[in-house]
Amino acid sequence: MNTKMIRYILAKMLGVEALLLLLPAFVAVIYGEKSGVWFLVPIALLAVLYLIGGRKRPKEQTIYGKEGMIIVALAWILWSLFGALPFCLSGYIPNYLDAFFETVSGFTTTGSSIMPDVEILPQCMTFWRSFTHWVGGMGVLVFVMVLTSLDKHHTMFLMRAEVPGPEKDKLVPKAMSTARILYAMYLGLTIVEVVLLVFGGMSLFDSLIHSFGTAGTGGFSNYAASVGHFNSAYIDGVITVFMILFGVNFNLYFFLLLRDFKPVWKNEELRAYLGIILVSALLITWNISPSYPNPLTAFRYAIFQVASIITTTGYATTDYVVWPLLSQMILLILMVIGACASSTGGGIKVSRLLMVFKCIKREIMQMAHPKSVNVIRVNNKKVGSDVLRSLYVYLMAYGVLMVGSILIVSIDNKDFATTIGSVFATLNNIGPGLAEVGPAGNFSDFSPLSKLVFCIDMLAGRLEIFPFLMLFTASAWRRKF
Amino acid sequence: MNTKMIRYILAKMLGVEALLLLLPAFVAVIYGEKSGVWFLVPIALLAVLYLIGGRKRPKEQTIYGKEGMIIVALAWILWSLFGALPFCLSGYIPNYLDAFFETVSGFTTTGSSIMPDVEILPQCMTFWRSFTHWVGGMGVLVFVMVLTSLDKHHTMFLMRAEVPGPEKDKLVPKAMSTARILYAMYLGLTIVEVVLLVFGGMSLFDSLIHSFGTAGTGGFSNYAASVGHFNSAYIDGVITVFMILFGVNFNLYFFLLLRDFKPVWKNEELRAYLGIILVSALLITWNISPSYPNPLTAFRYAIFQVASIITTTGYATTDYVVWPLLSQMILLILMVIGACASSTGGGIKVSRLLMVFKCIKREIMQMAHPKSVNVIRVNNKKVGSDVLRSLYVYLMAYGVLMVGSILIVSIDNKDFATTIGSVFATLNNIGPGLAEVGPAGNFSDFSPLSKLVFCIDMLAGRLEIFPFLMLFTASAWRRKF
Repeated sequence: MNTKMIRYILAKMLGVEALLLLLPAFVAVIYGEKSGVWFLVPIALLAVLYLIGGRKRPKEQTIYGKEGMIIVALAWILWSLFGALPFCLSGYIPNYLDAFFETVSGFTTTGSSIMPDVEILPQCMTFWRSFTHWVGGMGVLVFVMVLTSLDKHHTMFLMRAEVPGPEKDKLVPKAMSTARILYAMYLGLTIVEVVLLVFGGMSLFDSLIHSFGTAGTGGFSNYAASVGHFNSAYIDGVITVFMILFGVNFNLYFFLLLRDFKPVWKNEELRAYLGIILVSALLITWNISPSYPNPLTAFRYAIFQVASIITTTGYATTDYVVWPLLSQMILLILMVIGACASSTGGGIKVSRLLMVFKCIKREIMQMAHPKSVNVIRVNNKKVGSDVLRSLYVYLMAYGVLMVGSILIVSIDNKDFATTIGSVFATLNNIGPGLAEVGPAGNFSDFSPLSKLVFCIDMLAGRLEIFPFLMLFTASAWRRKF
Repeated sequence: MNTKMIRYILAKMLGVEALLLLLPAFVAVIYGEKSGVWFLVPIALLAVLYLIGGRKRPKEQTIYGKEGMIIVALAWILWSLFGALPFCLSGYIPNYLDAFFETVSGFTTTGSSIMPDVEILPQCMTFWRSFTHWVGGMGVLVFVMVLTSLDKHHTMFLMRAEVPGPEKDKLVPKAMSTARILYAMYLGLTIVEVVLLVFGGMSLFDSLIHSFGTAGTGGFSNYAASVGHFNSAYIDGVITVFMILFGVNFNLYFFLLLRDFKPVWKNEELRAYLGIILVSALLITWNISPSYPNPLTAFRYAIFQVASIITTTGYATTDYVVWPLLSQMILLILMVIGACASSTGGGIKVSRLLMVFKCIKREIMQMAHPKSVNVIRVNNKKVGSDVLRSLYVYLMAYGVLMVGSILIVSIDNKDFATTIGSVFATLNNIGPGLAEVGPAGNFSDFSPLSKLVFCIDMLAGRLEIFPFLMLFTASAWRRKF
């Protein structure tokens, strides 16, 4: 275990967070908000830590997958620990655990909130809260890679641990160039959304806030009624489309930029993703239409919530906890499915779901015709047995984590839907859950133990469990292989 | 596909069911119940079908795993279709779908009921209803194998499809002898329980009914309050112990008969099973003790419901839906875990759970130390990669079936706990679920569509999904390999 290199990279990471915290401080200056002074405390702390550990590059720079995972897990925890300070010091979220919850929820692009009233926050705090979504969406380490010449040789191990999905592709041979291309596309799409929202009559500030939340598939809004606040079919439409766009595998945009349309058109995951969205939206439209003036209005609300939940964004234009059970169950299942691999969305990802169905089909075929040979292909590419094995283990670990979390949160003795919904919402990085934690509710009412479980679930969900498990594996630290 | 052999074996199976139906007819004679006449209708029908198809053995007798699965799936469906006739014809369950539900619930040892009041049934109907548990517990095909010289050469394929668990062992080289030994031990344990219950003051008839339900881990009682009706610590204790005994892998009893104690003592699954029971019972005792006069009484109720649920029996001595959420969640999780492999219990089985944890542990170890080689062992035996693959696929198919069922049942628009509880209770062959379908409730209130889904879940759960999926795989019927 190369602990020196771990320390060095983490110190660099903290330095970058200090730079990021300058942004909300600048927002405070623009709006003349005194609470902006509280950003200076973590900035100073982070700068000191950077100066201590991040200036001298260690001699032995080799790191492997194990170190990559531990760096990623620690980076996310540290960024959240320091990023929570302004909320807590300023007194807007007086309890530090609550502030930590809110920041983890931000970076992991979950969007669950412990704030009973988000509208009391000053602009600088609102900006920081939502900006964490934007940075967390594409990955905090990938972000640092883009900004600094972090580590030229082993960046792939860092990207692998942070970018979601069952298989990790590089767009171009160098991991760092891949990261830069990804971020450029991410930034481009975000800017287009901001422009479209401003065009629809939203203020620039609100447009930034809601574009950060859409791009990172986070879901923090500065209004209690979320996107429903604007009550505009145009804004609903723009955000619906962009939520769906940010849930797509970013590699496909790279193909589009290269004017290579065939891999996009033939992409099985994209087809399945769009198919699930359409079928779910139509089913919900049918299920809820008695409560709406006409089927088109019902569809507008159905497709918004479907897009919001499957991409794990978590914005809302209506309080779906009053919908019939079938619609709520569909949303609950979409929470688990999540978006496409290599997007900013959470959940288990559509490509993993595709593999699950193909594995079941193969098993039946093999039982029916023992002599036949069946290879599993996704996007016309053979899926290797190592990818399948880690798929199986991922799904099992996901199940165990989910059940364990539900058990611990059950101690709070809330109702069924609240308990299950809150775990699903955090583990899959959605934001709102069901019943008490639906779009109109919040997470403030849980015990500190449950809140801690939610923080772990959000981080484990965003990092797809294993980097986080690695952190707690004593033998990974102890033995040297 | 050897369809002639399938037809022949199924016809023989139907003949055996005709013989079984003579038993409740005999009970009707003893108690002088006129409703016993309705047993003669299926007996006559089944005898005719047997005479048509079951007398001449086909020339080509070879069958393989595929045929084994289809025979097993069809046998269970046919037995339930005919076994439901007396309930329906006699008017005690006027709706045929309801009668089918009740019979499927019996044979699959689920114990879920659509009867609002079970106490109105005459003795002969009660006897048949509970006797289906006893026959279904050890497997209807295994039962027929014991009674007839069904098929000397290929019985292993039939046993494999019907005996639950990730790996199928034979106790002795011949499958038929294995079946006979299993049934002898099963009968022996049942008789001991009957004697102990009669000794505790229960009538012989009630003792038989409750021993059938315990042995098959079914759970049908002839009293609305289930075992709680007797309100006796002795009876609770006897049934608790026997529920736990019938949830143990029957192969271990064979070792005990051979006075070979080491494999029993060292059996990992047994240790995990008893450990889970103890920990769950203690947690629930702690959780519910405020509502009971003393911790010992709380423990008496806790251990009974824990044993009842983990073995998937479904008897109750109290209405656990009033317990705090944590206790209910523990029971919900125990529903999924289920009993040991090769027992009469349902669920995913403790041995599969052990493998899940070992796979996750191996994956972490392998990520931490890529050069290490980690073999998964259960009971000191290496688990082959084919067993692991079918474990993974089984778990995924289980998840897909569960989610699909929950979606369809959601159309009924009941509450969360009822919907999830009802699917868990049927898919894992438990009996009672939560909320409306708790121990004091029943399944009569669901739509016909939901009841059909429950029937499919009960059958798929008992047969561990694949024989049932095979039945609906067109290509298994079409192509000849």
